[in-house]
Amino acid sequence: MKIANIFESIPKNFEDEFTDLLAQNEKVRIERIVSKGHASPATGWYDQEENEWVIVLKGAAIITFENDGDIKLETGDYLYIPAYTRHKVKWTVPELETVWLAVYY
Amino acid sequence: MKIANIFESIPKNFEDEFTDLLAQNEKVRIERIVSKGHASPATGWYDQEENEWVIVLKGAAIITFENDGDIKLETGDYLYIPAYTRHKVKWTVPELETVWLAVYY
Repeated sequence: MKIANIFESIPKNFEDEFTDLLAQNEKVRIERIVSKGHASPATGWYDQEENEWVIVLKGAAIITFENDGDIKLETGDYLYIPAYTRHKVKWTVPELETVWLAVYY
Repeated sequence: MKIANIFESIPKNFEDEFTDLLAQNEKVRIERIVSKGHASPATGWYDQEENEWVIVLKGAAIITFENDGDIKLETGDYLYIPAYTRHKVKWTVPELETVWLAVYY
């Protein structure tokens, strides 16, 4: 049994948002995403063919939904994003890492 | 879009460990489990037909594996438990809630 910690193995400085694959099979993909002031590109939307369940475990973020406007997520907040729900990350807190856990299925 | 917080909606006093279904479809089931000093029954094992990915988001726990002995999980620690890996919860910290997030697939 191999343990890891979701808040560890984060570089002190990183330029781009990064993603780690934590677990995967043919049904599901579990990822850690680490942001620090990052946001989605100004144009375009995430428009995924998978359902996503996402939780912010550290930091804070604002997700913009095409049909629902802005939603702020603080530590511990989670959200279900059905497939083909257009959204983007508008903001993540710049002073510290925002750690997301995302389950795609 | 409906937000909830994984650390909220926990009763002040609860006798039994409890589980909330956070998301589900035919591929995956995402649950919150809240323990407070609870452990598995003294005899028997969890012997699930699903794979489980589990993280401790608050508190601490010890899981005993039939073939691997005891593994302690602190806040942020996560673990993949393949289907049919016999295990049980030996201990959770008695002074505060232990909040688990489990993905079964």
